[in-house]
Amino acid sequence: MKAFIVHAHHEPTSYTAALFQTAQAALREGGHEVRTSDLYAMGFNPVAGMHDFAQPEDRATLHFQKEQHHAAETRTFAADVAAEQEKLAWADLVIFQFPLWWFGLPGILKGWCDRVLAYGWAYGRSERFDSGGLRGRRALLAISVGAPEARYQEGAIFGAIDRVLYPIQVGILNYVGLEVLPPFLAWGVPRVDDATRQAYLTRYAARLRGIEHETPLPFHSATLFPDPLGQTSLDPTALRRG
Amino acid sequence: MKAFIVHAHHEPTSYTAALFQTAQAALREGGHEVRTSDLYAMGFNPVAGMHDFAQPEDRATLHFQKEQHHAAETRTFAADVAAEQEKLAWADLVIFQFPLWWFGLPGILKGWCDRVLAYGWAYGRSERFDSGGLRGRRALLAISVGAPEARYQEGAIFGAIDRVLYPIQVGILNYVGLEVLPPFLAWGVPRVDDATRQAYLTRYAARLRGIEHETPLPFHSATLFPDPLGQTSLDPTALRRG
Repeated sequence: MKAFIVHAHHEPTSYTAALFQTAQAALREGGHEVRTSDLYAMGFNPVAGMHDFAQPEDRATLHFQKEQHHAAETRTFAADVAAEQEKLAWADLVIFQFPLWWFGLPGILKGWCDRVLAYGWAYGRSERFDSGGLRGRRALLAISVGAPEARYQEGAIFGAIDRVLYPIQVGILNYVGLEVLPPFLAWGVPRVDDATRQAYLTRYAARLRGIEHETPLPFHSATLFPDPLGQTSLDPTALRRG
Repeated sequence: MKAFIVHAHHEPTSYTAALFQTAQAALREGGHEVRTSDLYAMGFNPVAGMHDFAQPEDRATLHFQKEQHHAAETRTFAADVAAEQEKLAWADLVIFQFPLWWFGLPGILKGWCDRVLAYGWAYGRSERFDSGGLRGRRALLAISVGAPEARYQEGAIFGAIDRVLYPIQVGILNYVGLEVLPPFLAWGVPRVDDATRQAYLTRYAARLRGIEHETPLPFHSATLFPDPLGQTSLDPTALRRG
C-alpha cells in the first residue's frame, strides 16, 4: 500500500512524534511506501482564506466553496493545498497522527481539513460518502489520548470514544469517501509508565505491518439514506453566501 | 448580562457576518454589554506553540499543558491569549458565531480553543464540568449550517445535530464549566431564499434580546460520574509528554 501520514504535534520529542516515527518504520518494514506531512515542521497555515486560491474568480468577496469548486475545475489551488491533495490522491491509506485536544483535532489539523478537502475535489454535488472523491482509499485515526480508556465508555464521564470521534470519522473521513479502519488509541499517555508506552508502540507497529488485511468499520453509505429533499444538492454555482 | 461574541468567518459580507452584526445590535438593545473577537479580522493565530508563553519554563522542549499550567500560575500567557482570557473572565455569556465546517468548528476557532482555554486557567486537576474554571457563565453556539435541518436528524444521513455537536458542547464548553444554551441554528443557508434568511436574523435577534431568561441544557456534571480511577487527575507537574 501507499501510506500518507499527516502528523500534527508541535514537539519532535513527544510521544506522539514517537508514534509517527514508529508508523513510518513499521509501514516500510511491511513493504509499504510512505509519504508524510509533518504540519508543525512544515509551518502549515490552517486558516482557510483567499490565499487558498492562485486565481480566484472573485478577489473582492470570498465565497469559499465556490472558489474551491473553481480551483478544482481549473486546477488552481495554492501550492500548499495542491501539494497535500497530490499526496492524498497518491495514497491508498491515510493516517492522521495527533493528540486528542478538546475531543477533537488540533487546530492545525482541523484547518488542514478545511483547506485541503476542498469542494469539487474531495466531495461535490453528489460525491459524498461512498461516492466521495477519495473513495477506494482507507483512513486511520492514530491518537494519543490524555485520559485513560475507562473515561471514554458509554455512561462514563466523557462518553464512548466512538461518539467523541463521530464528527471526524463520519463527518470528515467517510464524507469524502475514505473507508475508516478502527482507530489506534494510546490511552492515558501523560499518565502511564514506560512499559505501557513501549507496549503501545509495539502494538502499533505490529498492526501497521499487516494493515492491508484489516476490515474497515461499516461505511456511512449515502445510498442508505434517501435524500429527504429529493435531491443531493444544489448546483454549486447557485450556492449563496454562507 | 455581559456578552462576549467570538466570530469566525473570513468574509465580512457573509451571512454569518450578518448574524454577528445582528447579535451585537440585539444584545445592546436588550440592555446587555457586548465585546467581540472577530478572529479573521484580528489575524488570530490558531496554532498552539511556544509563542503562547511569554516566559516558558522550558524553551527547548514544549510540554504544552505544563507550560499552560506554568503560565496560569505566573500570569505569563502571550498577549493574544491573555486578551481572549480577559474577555472570557469578564463575560456572563459567550457566543460562538461560526459556519459548521466538517461537522465542527473552523480551524481558526478550534485553534482559539486549544490556545485560550488553557490548563490551569479554564480547567485543572479537579476543575472540570460543573467545577470548571469558567463556571457561572453561559455559552451559545450560533451556527450557519450548509445543509437543511432534515439531514441532521437521528436516522438521517448526517445524524442528529446534538450528536454532531457533542464534542463541542460537552468536550469544550461544558468541560470548562460553561452552561450551554440550546444552539441557534440557521439551516441550509446557501440554499434558502431571502425571506428565510431574513427570518433567521429576526428570530435570532428576538432570542438574544431575552437571552437572560433562557434555561441551559442539562449540565454534564462531573459529580454524576464517580471517577473509575479513584482520582480526578495527576498532579500537573507529574504529567509526561503526550
